[in-house]
Amino acid sequence: MKKASIISIGNELLIGKMADTNAVHISGKLLSLNIPVVSIHTVPDEIVSIVRAIKLAAEEADIILTTGGLGPTDDDLTRPAFAKFLNAELVLQNDLLQKIKGFFTKRNVPMPENNKIQAYIPAGTKAITNNLGTAPGIMADFNGKLFFAMPGVPAEMKKMLEESVLPLLEKFAEGQIIEIRKLKCFGAGESTVAEMLGNLMQRSRNPLINCTVEYGDITLYIVASAKDKERAIKLAHQDEKLLRSILGDLVYGTGEQTLAEVVGERLALYQKTLAIAESCTGGMLAELLTDVSGASRYFTHGWVTYSNEAKITELGVPAALIEKYGAVSSQVAEAMAKCAGERSKADFAVAITGIAGPTGPTEQKPVGLVYISISSQMECETKQFIFAHDRKLIRLRAALTALNILRLHLLKVD
Amino acid sequence: MKKASIISIGNELLIGKMADTNAVHISGKLLSLNIPVVSIHTVPDEIVSIVRAIKLAAEEADIILTTGGLGPTDDDLTRPAFAKFLNAELVLQNDLLQKIKGFFTKRNVPMPENNKIQAYIPAGTKAITNNLGTAPGIMADFNGKLFFAMPGVPAEMKKMLEESVLPLLEKFAEGQIIEIRKLKCFGAGESTVAEMLGNLMQRSRNPLINCTVEYGDITLYIVASAKDKERAIKLAHQDEKLLRSILGDLVYGTGEQTLAEVVGERLALYQKTLAIAESCTGGMLAELLTDVSGASRYFTHGWVTYSNEAKITELGVPAALIEKYGAVSSQVAEAMAKCAGERSKADFAVAITGIAGPTGPTEQKPVGLVYISISSQMECETKQFIFAHDRKLIRLRAALTALNILRLHLLKVD
Repeated sequence: MKKASIISIGNELLIGKMADTNAVHISGKLLSLNIPVVSIHTVPDEIVSIVRAIKLAAEEADIILTTGGLGPTDDDLTRPAFAKFLNAELVLQNDLLQKIKGFFTKRNVPMPENNKIQAYIPAGTKAITNNLGTAPGIMADFNGKLFFAMPGVPAEMKKMLEESVLPLLEKFAEGQIIEIRKLKCFGAGESTVAEMLGNLMQRSRNPLINCTVEYGDITLYIVASAKDKERAIKLAHQDEKLLRSILGDLVYGTGEQTLAEVVGERLALYQKTLAIAESCTGGMLAELLTDVSGASRYFTHGWVTYSNEAKITELGVPAALIEKYGAVSSQVAEAMAKCAGERSKADFAVAITGIAGPTGPTEQKPVGLVYISISSQMECETKQFIFAHDRKLIRLRAALTALNILRLHLLKVD
Repeated sequence: MKKASIISIGNELLIGKMADTNAVHISGKLLSLNIPVVSIHTVPDEIVSIVRAIKLAAEEADIILTTGGLGPTDDDLTRPAFAKFLNAELVLQNDLLQKIKGFFTKRNVPMPENNKIQAYIPAGTKAITNNLGTAPGIMADFNGKLFFAMPGVPAEMKKMLEESVLPLLEKFAEGQIIEIRKLKCFGAGESTVAEMLGNLMQRSRNPLINCTVEYGDITLYIVASAKDKERAIKLAHQDEKLLRSILGDLVYGTGEQTLAEVVGERLALYQKTLAIAESCTGGMLAELLTDVSGASRYFTHGWVTYSNEAKITELGVPAALIEKYGAVSSQVAEAMAKCAGERSKADFAVAITGIAGPTGPTEQKPVGLVYISISSQMECETKQFIFAHDRKLIRLRAALTALNILRLHLLKVD
């Protein structure tokens, strides 16, 4: 199995200002091709440090990928460092220079003299096209190892990785074609999903099933490998069907879809509208919904009734109900949802009330206690949850869970 | 000047799941002591890889800090790796074992046999107390270099760094005491702030002024160094005064304060209440405000009037006004703020309407066009903005700018 090492180049990564998200992105992509990353080295903009890191990485791995240091300024030293490592001269590539000039011509500005340096690459290496910026990448095949130098700007790096580097590595991956499917799930913990899938998650199986989780939002990767594309697609497709049959309505989408997108698409498809009334999530559910462009097609009304008074005057929740059961109760959650539905005339209304903490809990009502209610003309359902961890997480889990409950209700619409 | 290298240990850092935020935290803290980090090496849970990284780091730096691999399970290999590097035996430390046992006794559970391994450290090294977990740290002074092994759990690492490692390094930092102040600013771009500060930002100056920016939210670091604490504090204090006099009301807070916190504190202090009506930000302003625990003291009503109908029926914005000027107009923003104020009887009401994109722009109204209105019994002020970049950023800039406008209004209250 081929192994990879990543070298992240840039002073800005060593001064406590930013996390190296490039390395995270690259290692995830490589793992999906069954190429494990065995090390990440972060070094400053210094030739000696870069060369030392390249040498070390070449000892550790078969594929060496660098990001950063390809810009036009004096502190961009990846080009000379690579030249030194390869013991080669930097050579001006005229076609590259024309491309860089073209980048400026398109914008009707002359190319600054500095940018000319980006057209120099070590003799014997190949340039990789950069469709978003002036910095071309560099590719070298040296002593049986593959070297890729990519820009540090995340958008440029990602595009170059996707379009030029990964396709080469796919072929490199021992004649194996890889087909990846992502299934997004919500509504059960990672360990429950792992239990449901059982043997399917064995490391030796093909397709390989990987699982990641973020705020309760689970992504299952189906990594199918085969000798040809058709076979790989077939394997992945079979597994997707199998996983869907096992996981049922835990699966909400594929690829990069979010719960808010899926819910929104379904509301738009059925021409249904939505109103929401939030207390403890304080606008977070509305924010998730409206993060999707075009949400105005289905999301009409949102209330952040943070005070009892607002619940009474704006939604029409009976004061006596709050008095009797407290603002954090299934009764008030239900009333909030029903009132929001009536006031807005929306097809669905969702309400959330709870204790996000750290202040506010009582003996009967702990931090994390949340009621979510969903009301439609057909029915009204209210559920109780106790979410763990801190204020931020409790609020986010509550908002995502509300979206998921709404999604499950929408499955019944047709 | 002493230099440091960080080694991050753990398979989970190499599979595309998480960014190495420990290294970011450590390098920021060390830089504040004038100790630059010259490399970060991320390696898997393998003795060979860890030893190789320690050797390399010891070549590059004077201070070597590792995180991770100190747990009780088979894949926690920092202890044996350090022993191998130091060519020393792992020795059971009885006092350490008692501390680890005590950790479990406090929780009324017996210590699992596995945890005993955490009481072994290489001969000739010292244990560092872990007040949050079972994994003690390790400190070694070897060949004139200082080695620190810390846990990978961020909270445990941060506490150990703060309480045990940094105090040692402060003495190590060539007799210089460092005092750091952070000033938080909003309302001008990074380059404008840099221009206002001029020579004060020169790299050779003491105190050193650093600047970082995130979503328009600027942090200025005043890094003062002196022979003694008193002098360092005095220098930092003088600079804080100087910067405040230059930047005026651009400065909104210090340390880790956020705009929402500062606004909230001031509202609570003056016993004023706030209502908000959001269109394009779709709940984001409410979410920022209610991210602060105790926001119910001042935040009473929030409306997410995403549809025109909701603006009319819930807030009472005249339909004719929307018809005449459009929902994204200063007139409608003003009406939203005034109506929100009247309905809620809150002391301040803030309204936001705009085009977050990418859908929805017209020739007269581009993506990023946002109107923010603030209304109180004294006055009503409406401002127009055109924010750049994508939907997420436009929404966040709009919400933060609304908070900032509210903050400036609150400066007039007394």
